[in-house]
Formats: sequence, C-alpha cells, structure tokens
Amino acid sequence: MKTKGMALTVPGGRWEPYAFERRTLRPDDLAVRVTWCGLCHSDLHAAEALTAGAGPLVPGHEFTGEVTAVGSEVTGFRVGDPVAVGNIVDSCGVCPACRSGAEQFCREFPTTTYGGKDRVDGSVTLGAYSRDYVVRESFAYPLPPGLDPAGVAPLMCAGATVFEPLRRWDVGPGQLVGVVGLGGLGHLAVKFAKALGARVAVFTTSPGKEAAARDLGADEVIISGDGEAMAAQGDRFDFMLDTASAKHDPSPYLRALRMDGTLCMLGIPDRYEPEAMALLYGFKRLAASGSAGRSRTREMLDFAARHHIVADVEKVPARDVGPALDRLARNDVRWRFVLDLADLD
Amino acid sequence: MKTKGMALTVPGGRWEPYAFERRTLRPDDLAVRVTWCGLCHSDLHAAEALTAGAGPLVPGHEFTGEVTAVGSEVTGFRVGDPVAVGNIVDSCGVCPACRSGAEQFCREFPTTTYGGKDRVDGSVTLGAYSRDYVVRESFAYPLPPGLDPAGVAPLMCAGATVFEPLRRWDVGPGQLVGVVGLGGLGHLAVKFAKALGARVAVFTTSPGKEAAARDLGADEVIISGDGEAMAAQGDRFDFMLDTASAKHDPSPYLRALRMDGTLCMLGIPDRYEPEAMALLYGFKRLAASGSAGRSRTREMLDFAARHHIVADVEKVPARDVGPALDRLARNDVRWRFVLDLADLD
Repeated sequence: MKTKGMALTVPGGRWEPYAFERRTLRPDDLAVRVTWCGLCHSDLHAAEALTAGAGPLVPGHEFTGEVTAVGSEVTGFRVGDPVAVGNIVDSCGVCPACRSGAEQFCREFPTTTYGGKDRVDGSVTLGAYSRDYVVRESFAYPLPPGLDPAGVAPLMCAGATVFEPLRRWDVGPGQLVGVVGLGGLGHLAVKFAKALGARVAVFTTSPGKEAAARDLGADEVIISGDGEAMAAQGDRFDFMLDTASAKHDPSPYLRALRMDGTLCMLGIPDRYEPEAMALLYGFKRLAASGSAGRSRTREMLDFAARHHIVADVEKVPARDVGPALDRLARNDVRWRFVLDLADLD
Repeated sequence: MKTKGMALTVPGGRWEPYAFERRTLRPDDLAVRVTWCGLCHSDLHAAEALTAGAGPLVPGHEFTGEVTAVGSEVTGFRVGDPVAVGNIVDSCGVCPACRSGAEQFCREFPTTTYGGKDRVDGSVTLGAYSRDYVVRESFAYPLPPGLDPAGVAPLMCAGATVFEPLRRWDVGPGQLVGVVGLGGLGHLAVKFAKALGARVAVFTTSPGKEAAARDLGADEVIISGDGEAMAAQGDRFDFMLDTASAKHDPSPYLRALRMDGTLCMLGIPDRYEPEAMALLYGFKRLAASGSAGRSRTREMLDFAARHHIVADVEKVPARDVGPALDRLARNDVRWRFVLDLADLD
C-alpha cells in the first residue's frame, strides 16, 4: 500500500515529505492509519547516526491510530478499531525472554518499529512519522477507552519505558521514589510513581521546572546543582529512576538511596561509571532498563486507563517535524511532542 | 600493657619487630593473646599507602587468640576463652546501620582494627601482626569449638566478606553461583556457596587453578581468558561474586547472569565501569560489598562451625611476614597466609 511520511534522506539534511510503499498485508498483519506519533530522544540519535546512502530514515515508534485493514488470519482487531503501537513490532517468540513477555530482551534482538530488520523479508523498517503503518497484530494494542489518543501515543515508548522499572522494583505506598530529570520520560515517571502510591521527589538541573514538577504531582523538588540540598538526600530513597539521557555520574543518586535501594538508569551511554564506594556503602544496586515487552506494555495501558494517565503533549503538524526536533534537542518542550499525521493528507 | 608486633616504619622499608604499648584495659575491654593472624590484600594496600612520618604500620585484622585479661564490666568473656576478632573493633552504635548490626556502614565510619582512629583516645589503631590486642568485648567473638583456630583467623575478614553478600542475596539450593577469582576470598566463597546448597562455577584467569578449584568443591571451572568458554556463559548465573582485587571490566560477568541476576563486586577501584548494555539487557544488577557487621559475622561463625568450614592456610612465622607479603602480592599462596604470633615470644 502507498503511504506518505516525513523522512531524512541525507545526513544533516532537511526533513521532507516522502512517499513510499508499505508491505502488502500478511495474514497476521494490521494496516493502521496513524493519527498521532510521539517524538522520542531516540529519533534525534537516529538522525545523528544516519550515514550517507543509508536513508531514508522515517522514525516514529510511539503512535496511535485506527485499523484500516486486517490480514486473513487476524482475530483480535477489526477495521475501525483504535490501536496503539510501541517500539517493538516483532521478536523471535521462542527464546526465554520472549516466552516471558519481555521481548525487549529477545535473544535475537527484537524488531524495532523503525530502523529494524523485518523478520520475514529482511527490509529495514520505516517508522510512524507516516500516515500508515503495517504491523503484526500481536504487537498492536487496543487503545484504552477514555484516554486522549494524542496523549496515549507517548505512553507507548516513554510511558512503557518508565512503567517497566517502577513495577519491576515494586514501587508503591510507603516508598520514597526519586525521579532524575524532568522531560518526556521523567514527567510520566512522576505520574506513574504517584499513581502507584509512592511519595515522589524530582531531581532536576533546572530551577525553572520546580512549579511544573509540583503540578505533575511531585512531593519534593531537588535542584541537582545545589550541593547543600544534594548532601541532605543521603540514605533517603527506596528507589531512584534516572531518566536523564546525557552521560553523567550516577554516584550522587546512589548516595541518596537508603540501604539496599536501587538506582535504575534509563539513559544509555557506552558505560556507567559509578564510584565504587557510592555503590558499596549500604548495598546499593545499580541497574538499567530500556523499553518494555508486551506483558508490561499491556499492564501499563490498563493502569493508565484506570488512573487517567496520559502524556502532556504539544501537538505539531507532521510537516513541522524538523523544527520540533530542534526544540526537542534543546529540551524545549513540556513534555512530549506528538506529530499530527493528518497534516500529510 | 607491653607487646611486640611486626611493623613497617618507613615507606618501602623492611618489616621488623616492633615493641609498643597497648592501652590499659577500659571497663569493656578484653586483652587477647594473638595466636594466628591472616594476611589480607588490604595489608598490602596499607603498606603501599604508607607515607613518611605516618608509621609505624602494624596491620592485621583477622585473628584468633585467647583472652588474657578482662575489664571490670566485661560479662561475655573470661580469661582463657578462645576468641576471634575481625576488621571492625568499634562503631558509633547509634546510627541506623549500627542499630541493624551492619556496622560496616556506620554513618561515622567504623573503627578499623588497624589504621583506624580509636573513638575514646583518638589514637591510631595498631593491628594484630602483634602478640597482644586490646578490643571492646562487643567486637570480639567466641571462637567456634571444633574448628582449627589458624583456619578461623581468615574467616574474620575474608570469610565474613564473602559470606555477607552470599546471604544478602539469598544464595541457596537450585541456584548457579559464579565466583570470580580464586584466592583468599574466592576459595572461601566456593566453600560457603557450596555449603549454602548452590551449584558453583569458578571463573579464573589461571588454567593451573582448575584442579584446586574442583578440590574446593567447584562444580565448574571457566578460564576467563577463553573467549569461547566465556561466550557460552550468557544468561546462566543467578548470582555472581567477583572477588578479583585488580580493576577489571565487570561486563562479561554481567552478561553471564540470567535475567534479574546480581553481580556483586568485592574489589574496590575508584569506579566500576560496566557497559551500559551489559547491565540493561536482562535487568542485571551491579552491587558491591565489603566487610560485614556483627550480626552477619556471628551468623558466619555459626554456619562455619556447623559446616566445618575454615580457610586453607599456609602458616608463616611472624618474623617472616615480609617475604609472605611479597608472595601474596604475586598471588603465590593457597589460599591464605596466617602468621604464627608465638614466633615473637
């Protein structure tokens, strides 16, 4: 099927409309008319990593839309159903990780929504900065009723990415949770951690974000550049979720944990480099997480529906994706851009 | 009271007999006639770190002996009792760590058996490379009956140091545990992990240690320089205890863990530097541990007595501590040197 998207075709070039062909539906495929697609920091990384001849790059891996066609063996969706799709669209299905619903750790690496390799025809996947997407039904999720589809789109990557570690480390009532960094991931981490019943403190480099953090539900805001305030955080936190994408020293956040507490990193530099003593003193644990599998994604959507959680979004016409990505690179967004794909009609 | 020890008085100098005065017993003190004292890697570090004018250095923080005098308020020991002492001889006693029996994390830092600062008179503590030691009774432990005192001495630092994380991470039946490095710590880790019911694999750089590892009870031995053997370890281990003291990349051992497994480091470089993806892929946890508090030390001694666990030691006359430390620096010992302090009489 024919569709249109927004693509980067040469490194450092401009984002431009791009017409291309989606695969003909396989028996277990859905065609989805994309309505909203979130802009993720990964999209910036993918654009920076684009090499000559490797394009076109069509990012986009957190989106909502409507089913427009179904393959012959599809049983879970019908034309007209509202759906949501995240950053994994296929996996081997048979390794221990896949069997446990943690496809993000598929032994053969999961097929990503864009920039992945299709497991059937070997083509490079093109993402949902586009009007249509074709996806195996088992990697599409019913859009929860009662939630704004534009705000759900970022739940599919940013939301699942923060919800996974909050649940894996059993965040809940009686706990004090730190959220490092307030952006697309961080603002959803605050909402989910609060809804899970924890007390939440936001660590931010930006004094200007304090009021916004409290509006999101944060009980405390700590300015990470304030040495005195940071020193006062020792041995306080049960769990700390570090959503900052730039490489930084995790040691101050390890020190802020209580004994046996865990710091989970979401940013992915080459290496983490904690001070040994910050880890050792009090049996702190350093962990990392990225993305989520199908079990957790389904759980996250159910939870979001029950607690009326969506991302706070700024809507952008799809053709304006270039300037929006420039603003994202400067963290100039509260808290997530979503592309309006109807702009491409 | 007068005593004699083996001391390093100038940086890079020779180890020589050294006569000095122990404090007069306070009401809650014991005097201990030291019989056996283990040589620990920390002793090498302390010798290397000695600066001009800072000496004399008398190391020694894992020892056994006999009570020769008791203070006026001592209730738990009598003259003639066999005792064991480890690397902590005092702590604040009131912080949350101390109250929970984890004095190694005392907020004011515990008083170490040597090179520490006495909490009453402010003097620098001198260790058990000496014929007598004076210690608060609450930091002395009854020597378990039925165990060779020479083999118990290294339990007090090396043994407690490996037992603490094995218990904290609930190592037991049905688990596969990796022990990285086979030396003073590693050989005790194998014994304790086996006695706790786990299956144990030793990772060593030395093909020559394979037979010895199996003699200690290891079910498997993996030569860490064998790329093929290492690649085959992915996603296998429930828990991994890394006893290697030199700084190294923990990533291969993180990869060897199964999902949600923990790698606990015992070596203490400035920073640990794991690859982000090695930590992220499968929710691996990086942790660190050092030493143990009183609760765990008591538990370790009980466990050792029940399972007849002592260190495998090579006995050395106290006056030969210099050559023994040289051999320790080359890892030329199976598996722990203990000084025979009667040599100083």
